[in-house]
Formats: sequence, structure tokens, C-alpha cells
Amino acid sequence: MTRIVNFSAGPATLPLEVLQQVQSELLDWHGSGMSVMEMSHRDKEFMSIAADAEKDLREVANIPANYKVLFLQGGATAQFSFIPMNLLRGKTGVDFVLTGDWGKKAAKEAARYAKVNVAATSEAEKFTHIPDRASWKLDPNAAYLHITSNETIHGVEFFAEPDAAGVPVVADMSSDILSRPLDVSKYGLIYAGAQKNIGPAGLTIVIVREDLIGQTLPNTPGIFDYKQMADNESMLNTPPCFAWYVSGLVFKWIKNNGGLAAVAERNAAKAAALYDYIDSQDFYRNPVKKENRSRMNVPFTLANPELDAEFLKGAKAAGLSGLKGHRSVGGMRASIYNAMTLDGVQQLLAYMKEFARTRG
Amino acid sequence: MTRIVNFSAGPATLPLEVLQQVQSELLDWHGSGMSVMEMSHRDKEFMSIAADAEKDLREVANIPANYKVLFLQGGATAQFSFIPMNLLRGKTGVDFVLTGDWGKKAAKEAARYAKVNVAATSEAEKFTHIPDRASWKLDPNAAYLHITSNETIHGVEFFAEPDAAGVPVVADMSSDILSRPLDVSKYGLIYAGAQKNIGPAGLTIVIVREDLIGQTLPNTPGIFDYKQMADNESMLNTPPCFAWYVSGLVFKWIKNNGGLAAVAERNAAKAAALYDYIDSQDFYRNPVKKENRSRMNVPFTLANPELDAEFLKGAKAAGLSGLKGHRSVGGMRASIYNAMTLDGVQQLLAYMKEFARTRG
Repeated sequence: MTRIVNFSAGPATLPLEVLQQVQSELLDWHGSGMSVMEMSHRDKEFMSIAADAEKDLREVANIPANYKVLFLQGGATAQFSFIPMNLLRGKTGVDFVLTGDWGKKAAKEAARYAKVNVAATSEAEKFTHIPDRASWKLDPNAAYLHITSNETIHGVEFFAEPDAAGVPVVADMSSDILSRPLDVSKYGLIYAGAQKNIGPAGLTIVIVREDLIGQTLPNTPGIFDYKQMADNESMLNTPPCFAWYVSGLVFKWIKNNGGLAAVAERNAAKAAALYDYIDSQDFYRNPVKKENRSRMNVPFTLANPELDAEFLKGAKAAGLSGLKGHRSVGGMRASIYNAMTLDGVQQLLAYMKEFARTRG
Repeated sequence: MTRIVNFSAGPATLPLEVLQQVQSELLDWHGSGMSVMEMSHRDKEFMSIAADAEKDLREVANIPANYKVLFLQGGATAQFSFIPMNLLRGKTGVDFVLTGDWGKKAAKEAARYAKVNVAATSEAEKFTHIPDRASWKLDPNAAYLHITSNETIHGVEFFAEPDAAGVPVVADMSSDILSRPLDVSKYGLIYAGAQKNIGPAGLTIVIVREDLIGQTLPNTPGIFDYKQMADNESMLNTPPCFAWYVSGLVFKWIKNNGGLAAVAERNAAKAAALYDYIDSQDFYRNPVKKENRSRMNVPFTLANPELDAEFLKGAKAAGLSGLKGHRSVGGMRASIYNAMTLDGVQQLLAYMKEFARTRG
């Protein structure tokens, strides 16, 4: 068996130790005589898996007690609808700061339910930076301010909690949750699809301040009513049990590897290695303003785009996969989530350098 | 490793061969160097897994070309909302025939979006039979007639497609889909959570006649618009990839084991063995009208309910699990889905007989 170095933007590489544990207990979890896939979600075995996962996530992310943690389905995209349905609370408008395509998609869905005010956007500059805070035109009556903390396609990331002047901040953290310590208390709601830093696709984590929930729009489906889900520990219906279980193993892996402080250090080192090299030459290029560059997704272009196909083919042959950039921006993208090792990044760098040397 | 005999109502036992295959390729799917959990859903590897699963399901269930097959999230419960949102098509009312608690739940959710007409119900008789067809008070202007083809809690099953006098029939088949051949063309829409006869929880299959979709209510979330999902091959956003993959292996397992005709024969034999014994004595009892008795879920009570706890404890010790009845009806329930073997049922019967002999 040869494992590739997988730079996919998501679903993405998982820690090898986690996969090995999943494999070893796939037919018989802890002597239960069942696979986790076969357990009733009401059985004590699965209840313990579920509770442990939440406990470990709360510990790792330092989630305050007045925040509920929900284990939902539908991906972040489903929450694009369910967040306004749950958080409007009698208000009519929501603010968005747009730093990429995912924010735009979230705003478009929110517009079904609320008046969307684009408080700031960097679209005119092709989403290559975060608009200066002083330029944001926030509505003091907005139900919330929505940001996408890391834009997977454009490689733009917020490294500080935004100041929303007292309005709750809602953050789509699908692609940078758990990549560094964060202050949950600065947010009204944090949400994330699992398939980058958490676990398999099919699970969505919502972390929400409890005073914000319980006032849904009338047409909200019962299982997407955050209050009902919180009151039922995310088991109003059958949850995505297996994804929940694997995610729990990932939370433990983070705990056992130094927690988010250590994770952040490794991620900073991986990202610096790539950006430092890219900035040191002219063959590859990243267009994002330095202080907004994502530590999770590093998009880069080749000076000569006619070499793109050859670059990708050679990378694949060298065991480096998932490097093709999103079709909307072209070029390349190296996604270097928590489970990507520094060694994997070094292999990519060696390949990039050799390719530039021979084709440059 | 000792595997138990798992009678859980869902998530439920899976075919051992399927689990073994999942285990063997967990770190490296077909030489790709990745787990299926780590594959981008846009990669050719996962696209082939997804397409194969749909092809095999279409073949196994004999799904006509004018039906779309959707691989969704949220469980059947989410569809309780999304079905009216998608299928009202300008109409205002929907018909329900209620034969158990799941139908009641579906009707309650539908009432957020439509006028619900209960055309027939057996609730007064504690859901122990299907109301006679002649008694149904159907509304000719209903958008559809909803039935629950198998009520998991009460053990009541439809064995023939209901005659809805020209109105599209919508069937929640969560707990009996793929348990026997069915005539899809008799339905407008069939839906099922995966976690009984299909695969792991977190995937929901919707099979829908294509002329019925494309007229959603205005507030329908984009990813639950069946037309948009059909046009995007269920990948408007990241699907629950791993559950989709395991389900594909289950479809292949059905194909390789004689298809639905053979599945139906095995299921009939398993159910007959249990019901024949239950009817032959007085220690155990099943309250459902004979011709409506489910071949998937066999609820039974002990003549003396004070022995329930001892029965369950002894069963557990004998390696028989998941037998506790739903809290709303009490007693016992043996769920005997496709992956339950006749040998497993015989082990249960042997235990029941011995328990009755010594405690009766």
C-alpha cells in the first residue's frame, strides 16, 4: 500500500493514525460485536461515542458552557438557509462581508429569508484581500454579521475575530476550524462542514450561543430548528453516526498532539514554507495580500499557464494529488489542512523547485 | 472477535462481506492511495463510486428512466419537510393514510406547508392494521397521497402498491426499501433513510418521477430543491461520500446474491419462522393483523411484562442484541432487515423457546 500526499480541498486527507484505528475496529468496536455503522444511535455504545466527541471538541476548542454544539447534516451549504431561519429573531436584515465565492453563495441563500446588506466586499479586486475594517458599512439593526473565516477557493483568511460593533458574528469556518486557537465567545455562531479539518463529509458542526436560538421562522423544518436539536442532543432523528465517530477520533488526535496551539504552530510552519518559496522566485505566484493569506489553502499560478497540465501530471506521478485549482480561478491550489504533514509540504516544494528548474 | 446477532431497528446490521471489504480498502481504495473518506467528490475515483452505486441501485430496484435518483442528507425526517416543499406544485392539500407513528410525524411536518387530510388511520386500533382501502377518504385535488410502507415501531407493512385514484403516491420506505421487488412506476416519489436496508446513517435516497419536480415553494433551501439536485447529480454541495460508497457495496451485495427476488424469499422465510412460532403458543404475542404484518420489524410482547428485563438480559448474554421494543409500544422488537441471516433468526427462536420453557 502506498499512500499519496493528498492536497485535496475537501473531502481532504485525514490523520493516518485515525484511519488505522477506524480500520482496526471496523467490524467490532471495543468488543461490542458491532461496527459503529451498525449501532443504534440510542444504544449506550453510540451514546458514549457521541458524548466523548462533544466533550473533546469542547475541550480542544475551549467552547464556553453557554454555547450549544450541534452535530447536523446537510453541509455548510444547508446552513446557508438554516442560519437565517434560526437567527433572524424578528429582525429583517443581515450583514455580509464578502471575501470570496463561499461568502457570496451564503449571501445568495440568505436573501431568500432576509434583506442582505453587503457591508464590504473585495470582489472588485478578485477577492485577493479582506476589506479594511474602516470601510465596512455595518447595519446596527442587522440580526448578525456573516463572514467566511477562510475562503477555500481564493485562499483568504481572517486571523482575528472581526469587530461587529455589538452585532453577533456568524462565521463559516468550514475550512479553518480547529486550525488554531480561537475565542468562541467572540462569535454568535460558528459552523463548519466536517470534510476538511474534522472528519468525513456528511457531518456539519454548529456552535451557537444559546440565547440566540429558539425563534425560528415558521417554515423551518423541525430537524433544522437549532433549539429543538440542542434540546435533543442532535438526535431528534438519526444522526450521521459514523462521521460523528470518526470526527471524535480526530478531536482526540488533536488533543494527543498538543491541542490547537501545537496545531497552529505546525500549520504556520507549513504555510510559511510554501509562501516563502513562492515569494522568492517568479515561476510561481500567489496574488493574495500577505497578511490575509490562508494557512489552509495556498492557491498559486504558474507564470506560463500552458505548463499547468504538465505540472499536474508530473505531480500525480510523484504521488502528489489534488493540486488543481478551483475552475473559477484556475492554476493550482495546495490545501494543507491539519492532517497534512510538513513532510508532505516539503515533498511538494521539492517537486515545485525541480519543475521550475527544468521548465523555467 | 465475536460478532453479535444484531436486531437493532436502525442503524442496523450490515452484510459482513460488505464490512470486510470496507475494512480491507479503508486506507487505500483500489490503489488510489487514499481512503474513500479522503477523496474529493469531484475526483474521478469518487465519481466512479457514485455512478456505480446509482447504476446498481437502478438495476436492482428496476427504476424506470423517467425517475431521478437522489443521494441526499438529513434522513427521512428532513424529507418530511422537503417533500411538500417540492411536490405541492401549486396545490394546497395532501392526503395521508396513517398506519403508525412515522406517518403521524410526517403528517405533522407536512402541515407546516400544506393542508393535511387524513384519508384513513388505524390509530384508534393502536396501529395494528392497515385501514381497508374502501374506507379511505381521498381528496381528488391532493398534491399526493403519503403512506409509510413499513411502520418500524408497530410492524405494519404494505405489500401492494396502494391505489390512489390517479394522485401520485409518496412512500416512506425507510425500513422496507429493497426488501422485495417493487414497481417504482406506481409511485410518484419513494424515499428512505439508508440506515436499515441500504447502508450507514447520514444518507437518504429519494427516487422521484421527473415530471413532479421543479416547482418548489419559494423558501426551499437550494440544496433540498430536488430539481437542482437532480440536475447536479446530487452534488450541488459535498455529498455524504462514505455512506454513498458503503451503500454502493450493499447494492452490489444484493445483485451478487440473487437480486430482490431472492432477497424477498429470504425475508419471507425469516419472518414466517418468527410469526409461525409466535402464533403457535401463548407466551409471546404479536397484535398485528396477519396480512399486514411486517417482514422487517417483528414486535412482540411477553404475556407477563415483568419478565421483559430478564428476557433482554438473557438475550444479551446469548449474543442477541437490539431487541427492546420502542418505548411507545413497549415489549420486544426483532428487526430482521436484509442483512439479518436466517441463522440469526433461528438463534433468536431457540432463545425464545428456551426462555418460554423455563419461565412460562
